[in-house]
Amino acid sequence: MSDSKKREQEAIDAARVEIDRIDGEILRLLSERARHVRDIGDAKQRLGEPIYQPDREEKIFERLIAANPGPLDDGAIRRLFERILDEARRLERSVYRDDEDRGR
Amino acid sequence: MSDSKKREQEAIDAARVEIDRIDGEILRLLSERARHVRDIGDAKQRLGEPIYQPDREEKIFERLIAANPGPLDDGAIRRLFERILDEARRLERSVYRDDEDRGR
Repeated sequence: MSDSKKREQEAIDAARVEIDRIDGEILRLLSERARHVRDIGDAKQRLGEPIYQPDREEKIFERLIAANPGPLDDGAIRRLFERILDEARRLERSVYRDDEDRGR
Repeated sequence: MSDSKKREQEAIDAARVEIDRIDGEILRLLSERARHVRDIGDAKQRLGEPIYQPDREEKIFERLIAANPGPLDDGAIRRLFERILDEARRLERSVYRDDEDRGR
């Protein structure tokens, strides 16, 4: 392998180490986010409020897209956070379901 | 509104402030991750390496699922990171396409 190819390969390996570190941080933040979502689900249930609040979700998208520094385009940011909010809704629903199962 | 309902509502509002802060951090990390992905795409192109590396992706899933602290289940972690890796692949492909457009 030529020196320049070796340097390219080292740059790739170093970027992958960084990506693995970032993925670990994202996992930690997604889990922390999910704990708050679960708490909100519990509180909403006690208040008798609906889970799905499209206005709140639309505001989340708008704010994040306005703050998007790139290089991901706005469509990518929307698709990524749609997935995050989708999983949040799924988790909130499972909180409700568990309580129904227990006959609350 | 009763005092207990007021407290529940305050807890929901506080959790939403935390979620908004976490979303901003996730946006920052996703963008940082995307910059590394773009750099890797550039380097792979110079090396003539393929973009899509399913082995590397499978290892990313395995490591994250092993580190999953909950409350999201493993299926949720996989779906979330599938979306993140999907957008990474889309970004790497756009690096290739831009270079082809410039006749490189």
